[in-house]
Amino acid sequence: MSQANQPAHPLTMIPGPIEFDDEVLTAMSHPAEAHTSPAFIKTFQETLKLVRNLFISSDPNAQGFVIAGSGTLGWDFVGANLIEAGENALLLNTGYFSDSFADALKVYGANIDEVKAPVGDRPTLEQIEAALKQKTYKIVTITHVDTSTGVLSDVKAIAEVVKRVSPETLVVVDGVCSVAVEEIRFDEWKLDFVLTASQKGVGAPSGLSIFFASAQALEVVKNRKTPVASYFASIPKWLPILQAYEAGKPAYFATPAVQNVYSLLASLKQFATSTEALEARFAAHVAASDKVKDAIAKLGLKTVSIDRASSAHGMTAVYLPEGVANPDLLPRIAKRGVVLAGGIHKDIVTKYFRIGHMGISAVYPKIGHVDNVISAITDSLQELGYSA
Amino acid sequence: MSQANQPAHPLTMIPGPIEFDDEVLTAMSHPAEAHTSPAFIKTFQETLKLVRNLFISSDPNAQGFVIAGSGTLGWDFVGANLIEAGENALLLNTGYFSDSFADALKVYGANIDEVKAPVGDRPTLEQIEAALKQKTYKIVTITHVDTSTGVLSDVKAIAEVVKRVSPETLVVVDGVCSVAVEEIRFDEWKLDFVLTASQKGVGAPSGLSIFFASAQALEVVKNRKTPVASYFASIPKWLPILQAYEAGKPAYFATPAVQNVYSLLASLKQFATSTEALEARFAAHVAASDKVKDAIAKLGLKTVSIDRASSAHGMTAVYLPEGVANPDLLPRIAKRGVVLAGGIHKDIVTKYFRIGHMGISAVYPKIGHVDNVISAITDSLQELGYSA
Repeated sequence: MSQANQPAHPLTMIPGPIEFDDEVLTAMSHPAEAHTSPAFIKTFQETLKLVRNLFISSDPNAQGFVIAGSGTLGWDFVGANLIEAGENALLLNTGYFSDSFADALKVYGANIDEVKAPVGDRPTLEQIEAALKQKTYKIVTITHVDTSTGVLSDVKAIAEVVKRVSPETLVVVDGVCSVAVEEIRFDEWKLDFVLTASQKGVGAPSGLSIFFASAQALEVVKNRKTPVASYFASIPKWLPILQAYEAGKPAYFATPAVQNVYSLLASLKQFATSTEALEARFAAHVAASDKVKDAIAKLGLKTVSIDRASSAHGMTAVYLPEGVANPDLLPRIAKRGVVLAGGIHKDIVTKYFRIGHMGISAVYPKIGHVDNVISAITDSLQELGYSA
Repeated sequence: MSQANQPAHPLTMIPGPIEFDDEVLTAMSHPAEAHTSPAFIKTFQETLKLVRNLFISSDPNAQGFVIAGSGTLGWDFVGANLIEAGENALLLNTGYFSDSFADALKVYGANIDEVKAPVGDRPTLEQIEAALKQKTYKIVTITHVDTSTGVLSDVKAIAEVVKRVSPETLVVVDGVCSVAVEEIRFDEWKLDFVLTASQKGVGAPSGLSIFFASAQALEVVKNRKTPVASYFASIPKWLPILQAYEAGKPAYFATPAVQNVYSLLASLKQFATSTEALEARFAAHVAASDKVKDAIAKLGLKTVSIDRASSAHGMTAVYLPEGVANPDLLPRIAKRGVVLAGGIHKDIVTKYFRIGHMGISAVYPKIGHVDNVISAITDSLQELGYSA
């Protein structure tokens, strides 16, 4: 892994887009190729097979999807396909991105009940179980990592509760800031739908919506009473296309983002080749996260997430010290060559900042990104007269 | 213009994706950059300003949109925003892509009347005027170039009829295979919505949905009686985002495809800098098209489009000679290093093939792409024992 071919540039350590490996970025400049050419079919086929590994799934009746778009588009796929107008959704809310997911589902007529945790916390399993017993839910949605708070949901435990209390309910995971960072075992945990995007843990440039649907989810779509409520975000339109490409045959619904698919493949080849390789990637993100969070604690600062167990491993949201504001701090950090992100959760927007530590920045510590982030924060705070 | 930095590869001469200039392709490998960074804001701002030039519009109340997705997504923007369930759309049908546009609009509940031309032809202005007088239409849709037939619609003349007979009706143009190839004067022709994608005349890799909306279209969206029927494909969600970026400020709804925007900018800088530069590009496409169509005629072959006036300038659909089938011809052409496309219109699918001649292949004749195509077709037909 290296960035030797890239010009000097500010280190982008936000919770996505993230820094790229040379091979991934070089793949973006793949020459023109017909989307129906044998070469591209092979590339897309290989990509879709690796997407199965990415979700640790061996169920031939589940299906991976890679579509030009963004993570947000994944919410439309959920709202337009998995739930029908007037049906119930239970939304486990851990921040801004859970709120937005709710907005997206409402557009498609879902009746939404929320179990909402205070900022930095997450709903308890008891609250979730109690809610599930109150009415029949078509889907339960979990924001695996809410990028606004850095809160990590316990997807495995929640899915266990859902499948025990209400086995017909689909378990839908927003994995935009978790896939390829946090442990996700699609088959073993009995998940039904996990959506993500290319520019976070997956390690490729933004521009692709990626999701994985279980056989049960695909059955639900097939048995809808009303038509799918979107044309572009239609699983019935895309399913035969993805199945064809994965079987090595061309098919057409909308032109795939050829170059972006090449870069996705280059990235997946670096870690989605086996479950062991993925597990090593998860462990590397835990180590990088611990390093960042230890440094933050040593500086006397607090994370937004209330404890380590409920903290994401690919990003950290940090409360500013008393008397320090983002417009003072972030430009100082930027002057040291490191780009961090401000707040986005409306209740605390001016009170915290966010650090991304995903992909090569986490799995290749020798590249020094995490060290640079810690130094830049430490030095900038010192410059502002703050000491732990 | 050059492809000196690209490895040897088959010449992709299909009606999109097209061959890329080095500068455009190199821009795809731009290093990581926050979508809210000053550098990216400047890039996106510059891109959006050039998008105005691309449509030859100087109306500050019109707005350009650049969104991760594909051309198909543009149809959802039309269906979910410009028309409400139960309202009438008049669809001018010139082939497969007009059929698909109709399918997309139906998802959103539009009542569709079609004026459908025989394969290779286009509806007459008299037919269109008669249809417009029968009922009130919210939108009229024109497929500027139907990529399945190579038929060119006379957008200027149609818009003139619509605005004369029914000024409230929005003129919606599918310009996927026409923008940056065929003359389009958004303001002067009183168009309301033109949608395209990055990978055809615009000359960049696939992955971006691009469209331009008039002040009247934006008013219609603002005054809807029912909510917009999509979350991702929502003009009210995207409008303030695009306005902010164009004004040099960051905003967030969904993460833009940063690298793809860089490549779009690199391409637009080559021809959307002025109306004169665009006019030169249109003229170059006419010249390339004439060259291809003259050669096709010299070979004794017929185009699917019935005459030159109704023929696209960025692609040519050609009937196979008697006794020659695509599975015989296209692999022979491919062996000569040129990739052409088969048929896609269901009525004639096995009877014709398609040639793309857009972007650098058209505006930079010295690169030899068009010559190579003509030689490859001529030699392959000769090999098959065909002579004019």
